[in-house]
Amino acid sequence: MPTRPLILISNDDSLIAPGIAHLVRCMQELHAEIVVVAPASPQSGMGHAITIGHPLRLDKSSLFGPEVEAYACSGTPADCIKIAKHYVLQGRRPDLVVSGINHGSNSSVNVLYSGTMSAAIEAAIEGLPAIGFSLCEYGDGADFSHVGPWVLEVCRQALAHGIPAGTALNVNIPKHAAGPIQGIRLARQARAKWQESFEQRHDPYKRPYYWLLGEFVNQDRGLDTDEAALAAGYVSVVPCQFDLTSYTGLAEMADAWQLALPPAGPASTPPQPVASEDYGPAAQ
Amino acid sequence: MPTRPLILISNDDSLIAPGIAHLVRCMQELHAEIVVVAPASPQSGMGHAITIGHPLRLDKSSLFGPEVEAYACSGTPADCIKIAKHYVLQGRRPDLVVSGINHGSNSSVNVLYSGTMSAAIEAAIEGLPAIGFSLCEYGDGADFSHVGPWVLEVCRQALAHGIPAGTALNVNIPKHAAGPIQGIRLARQARAKWQESFEQRHDPYKRPYYWLLGEFVNQDRGLDTDEAALAAGYVSVVPCQFDLTSYTGLAEMADAWQLALPPAGPASTPPQPVASEDYGPAAQ
Repeated sequence: MPTRPLILISNDDSLIAPGIAHLVRCMQELHAEIVVVAPASPQSGMGHAITIGHPLRLDKSSLFGPEVEAYACSGTPADCIKIAKHYVLQGRRPDLVVSGINHGSNSSVNVLYSGTMSAAIEAAIEGLPAIGFSLCEYGDGADFSHVGPWVLEVCRQALAHGIPAGTALNVNIPKHAAGPIQGIRLARQARAKWQESFEQRHDPYKRPYYWLLGEFVNQDRGLDTDEAALAAGYVSVVPCQFDLTSYTGLAEMADAWQLALPPAGPASTPPQPVASEDYGPAAQ
Repeated sequence: MPTRPLILISNDDSLIAPGIAHLVRCMQELHAEIVVVAPASPQSGMGHAITIGHPLRLDKSSLFGPEVEAYACSGTPADCIKIAKHYVLQGRRPDLVVSGINHGSNSSVNVLYSGTMSAAIEAAIEGLPAIGFSLCEYGDGADFSHVGPWVLEVCRQALAHGIPAGTALNVNIPKHAAGPIQGIRLARQARAKWQESFEQRHDPYKRPYYWLLGEFVNQDRGLDTDEAALAAGYVSVVPCQFDLTSYTGLAEMADAWQLALPPAGPASTPPQPVASEDYGPAAQ
């Protein structure tokens, strides 16, 4: 572990959310130099959105005291990481990027909709070791009192042992009311989904509008999933990749579809993940 | 192929973009029954964002003539698929979901930021066969005159041979000016990225704002990538999965980190993709 690691913090619930304040306090316990670039307004459900049609604003904040360099960014979580890496940090490379702590679970398929995890995955694309933290409890009143030691343990292991290249960690923490945490468990993303519907209402002018309603249903009986780990009282850790290629799908299509196979080339299929230092842009 | 397939169309460039008009015309050549639910305003770069803080509007449109049931939705591409599946289609199952044709490439890592592909991936999560189409040419003036036969060929193969369960196809088409198209090639997502920077400007009130600038750089020399296929004049087809778990990352972490291995369970690791009909919600 570096003597004084440089840690970049972001989230999707905005700079004033309780979850990010807890994350800042945890990183202070690591005696880290901390830079925070977080959204100025809540960005839950923003997925991996980026701002391309208009420019960004960046406002300095003293919210976390004189020791923490903090900024509110007008964009999305992915924007925050981009402007932190390419503008705020001016070429300095963080030892770790942490995002969260999200108010609400980002386990299973929720990872796709999660602004918290998009910040972490954006950092991974930039070749930086990155972790998204989420507490499985929604709302401003979520109880973060038990999360500190588990966040610190995951960060210490990441600083000591690294994070696999081409991945960001999706870490979910059971809520306090669920009882004592049993430990930390590596897991795969469960095949769960939302069973959804829309409720139609009418505005005062008789025009219809629609609210999305959903119930989260885990259809995956595997014991090696993030959902199973959380249900058993463990903190779940899923390494998430940003290469979306389904290699089994490719092989299946090469058999079923009447299309040419991809030619052989310098890189084998599937390729080995590249090391972080090889992945980063050469000019930086 | 069904005699008269039901095809759901969406995009991210909005209902009035030329690209979606081309896609509607292609699907009419398949003698399909067509339902369009597309964003009311441009949603490029929205990634897999969903609308959770406010309700959606849905306005019927006669833009594509009396034969095509079309709606403008106030939300994101992922919202469009959700409201189409759970409200507009009232339980009817599309034989195919197509998204696009995007004005601009969604090859390589662009898939993560793409609203076009988020519509397709959302459909795949719902257990529906789905394809996102993109033309490698930006702007309202993009030349779509050559795309028809290639879009139709991919859709015919999808209807005849299916799409691997748990995946959506990311199809990119070279621009017209690049010369005659050589064919269709299966490919993996290239390890390319954006080398980015921010340009600082000042508004009339002397306050700074920041424009994202970027250059797309392919660092992947593999001949089996989408970038290589496009550079050689082929339409690229990448099956994209929404299980982000890095199984090689899991194995690496089990060695390097001092954590318990996930327990064995009913599902093996990595699991086989489930068939579409098993994946859909039981209640529908």
